[in-house]
Amino acid sequence: MGIVVQKYGGSSVADAAGIKRVAQKIVATRKAGHDVVVVVSAMGDTTDDLRDLAQQVTPLPPPRELDMLLTAGERISMALVAMAIAQLGHKAQSFTGSQAGVITDSAHGKAKIIDITPGRIEAAIQAGAIAIVAGFQGVSQDTKDITTLGRGASDTTAVALAAALGADVCEIYSDVDGVFTADPRIVPTARKLDRVSTEEMLEMAASGAKILHLRCVEYARRYDMPIHVRSSFSQKEGTWILPAPPEGTEMEQAIIAGVAHDRSEAKITVVGVPDKVGEAARIFEALAASEVNIDMVVQNVSAAATSRTDISFTLPREDGQSAMAALARIQDEVGYDKLLYDDQIGKVSLIGAGMRSHPGITAKFFAALASAGVNIEMISTSEIRISVIVDEAQVDDAVRATHTAFDLDSTEVEAVVYGGTGR
Amino acid sequence: MGIVVQKYGGSSVADAAGIKRVAQKIVATRKAGHDVVVVVSAMGDTTDDLRDLAQQVTPLPPPRELDMLLTAGERISMALVAMAIAQLGHKAQSFTGSQAGVITDSAHGKAKIIDITPGRIEAAIQAGAIAIVAGFQGVSQDTKDITTLGRGASDTTAVALAAALGADVCEIYSDVDGVFTADPRIVPTARKLDRVSTEEMLEMAASGAKILHLRCVEYARRYDMPIHVRSSFSQKEGTWILPAPPEGTEMEQAIIAGVAHDRSEAKITVVGVPDKVGEAARIFEALAASEVNIDMVVQNVSAAATSRTDISFTLPREDGQSAMAALARIQDEVGYDKLLYDDQIGKVSLIGAGMRSHPGITAKFFAALASAGVNIEMISTSEIRISVIVDEAQVDDAVRATHTAFDLDSTEVEAVVYGGTGR
Repeated sequence: MGIVVQKYGGSSVADAAGIKRVAQKIVATRKAGHDVVVVVSAMGDTTDDLRDLAQQVTPLPPPRELDMLLTAGERISMALVAMAIAQLGHKAQSFTGSQAGVITDSAHGKAKIIDITPGRIEAAIQAGAIAIVAGFQGVSQDTKDITTLGRGASDTTAVALAAALGADVCEIYSDVDGVFTADPRIVPTARKLDRVSTEEMLEMAASGAKILHLRCVEYARRYDMPIHVRSSFSQKEGTWILPAPPEGTEMEQAIIAGVAHDRSEAKITVVGVPDKVGEAARIFEALAASEVNIDMVVQNVSAAATSRTDISFTLPREDGQSAMAALARIQDEVGYDKLLYDDQIGKVSLIGAGMRSHPGITAKFFAALASAGVNIEMISTSEIRISVIVDEAQVDDAVRATHTAFDLDSTEVEAVVYGGTGR
Repeated sequence: MGIVVQKYGGSSVADAAGIKRVAQKIVATRKAGHDVVVVVSAMGDTTDDLRDLAQQVTPLPPPRELDMLLTAGERISMALVAMAIAQLGHKAQSFTGSQAGVITDSAHGKAKIIDITPGRIEAAIQAGAIAIVAGFQGVSQDTKDITTLGRGASDTTAVALAAALGADVCEIYSDVDGVFTADPRIVPTARKLDRVSTEEMLEMAASGAKILHLRCVEYARRYDMPIHVRSSFSQKEGTWILPAPPEGTEMEQAIIAGVAHDRSEAKITVVGVPDKVGEAARIFEALAASEVNIDMVVQNVSAAATSRTDISFTLPREDGQSAMAALARIQDEVGYDKLLYDDQIGKVSLIGAGMRSHPGITAKFFAALASAGVNIEMISTSEIRISVIVDEAQVDDAVRATHTAFDLDSTEVEAVVYGGTGR
C-alpha cells in the first residue's frame, strides 16, 4: 500500500498523554498496511514560550538566531513521538527539517520551500521505520542555515512532503473535527463539510478560515494532493479537501461551501488623490516597497468638481503602521489630502464553486446582510467568492444571517470544540 | 591576537539575566582584541527536564531519539547567547555540534569525538563574528545522526574545539572560582590553586574532583591546550591547568596539589576464588563483556591451606547490578564461594607531582588517616597519586585530616559557593 503523511498540531502533542495517543494513531495506520510519515508541530505553547524567552534577552532578536531557537520546539516533540512509537514496538526515526531535505530560501522567519529531497525519509521507510519529521522548518539552500517557514507552516511541510514522496493522502490532525460551514463559535448550527474542493478551501483560507494554512492549500492544488482534515481526539472522518473533478464529471456539489470571516485586517483610505494617470500606481508601489500586503482595493469615482478621488484598501493590521509611514513619506509627491486608518472592520466572505452556475447569489447575500442591519463598506469578488467589509461589531450578525439565508444550518448542534487551529 | 575559546556551564546561562551577563563577558574578551569562540551548555536544569519528559513517554527511550531530544537544550541556550551578543552590537552566529564539525562515533549518549572540522566556525571568525557552539553534541560519522557525548561533556567539546582551532587558551566558566585543594564544602579552609599541571588535574578528575570532566583534561594533555577554570560570577583569575614544563626547567611547585574524594563507587569481593592461573582473567573478562568499568583491584595472598584467594575491586555504583549479574553467571565455571557487595565506601586520594621526588608521602598520609581513626580498606597508587578506600561515613574526616597534615589549609576561609559543577 502507499504512503500516508500525517500531520499533528501542537494541541495534539501538548503533553506526554497526547504524544502517546498520537503514537497509537500512527501505529494503527501502520498496522493497516501503510507506510507512514509524520509531521509534528512543537508541543502546545512551546513556540510562544521560546519567543518570550528571546524577548527577555533582546527586543529585536536576529532572525537567523530566532529560527535556531524556535526549531528546538519541533526537535523536542518529534523525538518524543518517535520514543512513544518505539514503546509500542514499532521502529521510528525522527528527522529535522534539514535532515528531511526541506530546502528553503534564506528568508528567516518566513522562508519558502524551494525543493524537497527526502532521501533519508525514503531510506527510513525502506528500512521499515515510521519517519517523524519536524514541521515548520528547513535549511537554506545558500547559507545552510536553519530556517522557519512562518507561523502555522507545519501544514505546508506536511503537504509538500506528501507531494515529494508521492503519498496517497496528507492527513492534517488538530483539535477540530474538520472544516465547517462557518466558525461554530459564532454559528452553533454550523455543519462539518464531508468534502470541499481545493479551490473553495483556498478561498476559505484566504478569507480568514484558520483551519488550514493558505500556502498548504496552494501546495495541495499545485500537486493534486488530497488532504483529510480531522481530529486527533476522535476516530471520526473529517473533511476531505479534493482537487476539482474533471470538467463534465462534476460531482454533485453544494452551491455554497461556507461562510468565512476575518478580523485581522484594517482599512486605510487615501483621501483626495489627484485623478491623474499613475497616481494609484505610485501609492501601491510605495506600499509594495515596504512589503505591505494589500487585500481589497476600492477607488471611488472621481468627484468631477475637484478631479480628486479616494482610494481605500484593506491590509493585515500588523502591517498598518508601516503602511501609514510609507504613505506619509509620499504625501508631497502624490499630493493627496489626508490618510484615514480604521482597524474596527471585519471581512465576511461567502464561498462556493456553485456560484459560477447559479445567478442571484450576490443579491441574496446582500439582502441577508441588509435584513440583519449590516452596512457594507467595501465589496470584492472572485469567481467563487463574494467578500464584504463590515463594521467589526457586526461580523457575528453578518455571518449568522448569511449562514441561515443559504440554508447551511444543521438541524443539530455539532459537538465540537473549536478552540483554535491546533497549530 | 589569537583565538580564545570560552565554555559556559548551565548555571551560568540559567536564565535571561545570566545569558546577558555571559554576553558581556564574551564581548569584553572580543573588545580586548581576541577572536572568540564560545561553547555553551543547556540552560540550568533543561537537560534533566528533557530527560524527565522522555521518562513520561517511555521508560526505555531509544538512544538515537534521546540524543535528538537532549540536543534541543543547547540549541536554545546558544541561540539566546547569540541574540544577547547581537543586542550589545556585536556579530554572533550560533552553530549546532553538527554545523561546528564535531564528528563522533555512533555511540548514542556517550559518543566519542573522532574529528573536528570547524570550517564554518573559521569562516564565521573570518567574517568578524563571534561563534557560539553547542556543547555536548556532535554528528555521527557513519549514520549522520545527532549524538551526545555524555553528561558534562561540554568541557570536552570546548577543549577539543580549542585544539582544532589552534586557540591560545580554553576558558571554562562555571559557578566556582577554580580548582581547590579539596572540596570547600568539606574543608572550609581549602585554598584555590593558581595553577596545577595537566597530569595532576587528570588524577584529580579521575579521583572524583568534579570541577572538570576527565575526557576534557585528557584532550588538554594530548594537545597541550592550556585551560583556565574560572567563575562567570566574578572577574577573579581562576586556576590555570598547564602542561608540565619541560624537564630541567621545572617551575617551583607544591609537593601536593590537593585531596580529592569520590562517593560514587562500590566494592565487590569475590570470595574463595581457586588460586589457579587464569581464574582472575575469567572474572574480569566477564565484567568487561558486561561493559563494567573497574577502578581499583586487590587480590589477597592465597591461604595456603585452601589454595583459595579473595579478589576485591571497586566500580561505579551504577554498574553494580550488572556486575553482580555477570559474576553470578560464571560462578559454576570459576568455582568461587560467594560474592560480597558494599556500596558504603568512599575513596580519598592525595595528588601531587612532587610525590615523585619526595619520599615519605605515603607514610605521612596513612599516619594522618590513622590519627583520625580512619581504617584503610584498599590502597592503590600511581606515580603522583595515592588512593585509599575507606568507610563512606569517614570520608569527610579522612579528607580534613589529610588536608591539614599536608599544610594545605588556608589562613582564611575562601568565600566560594561550591554548589555544583556548573555543567
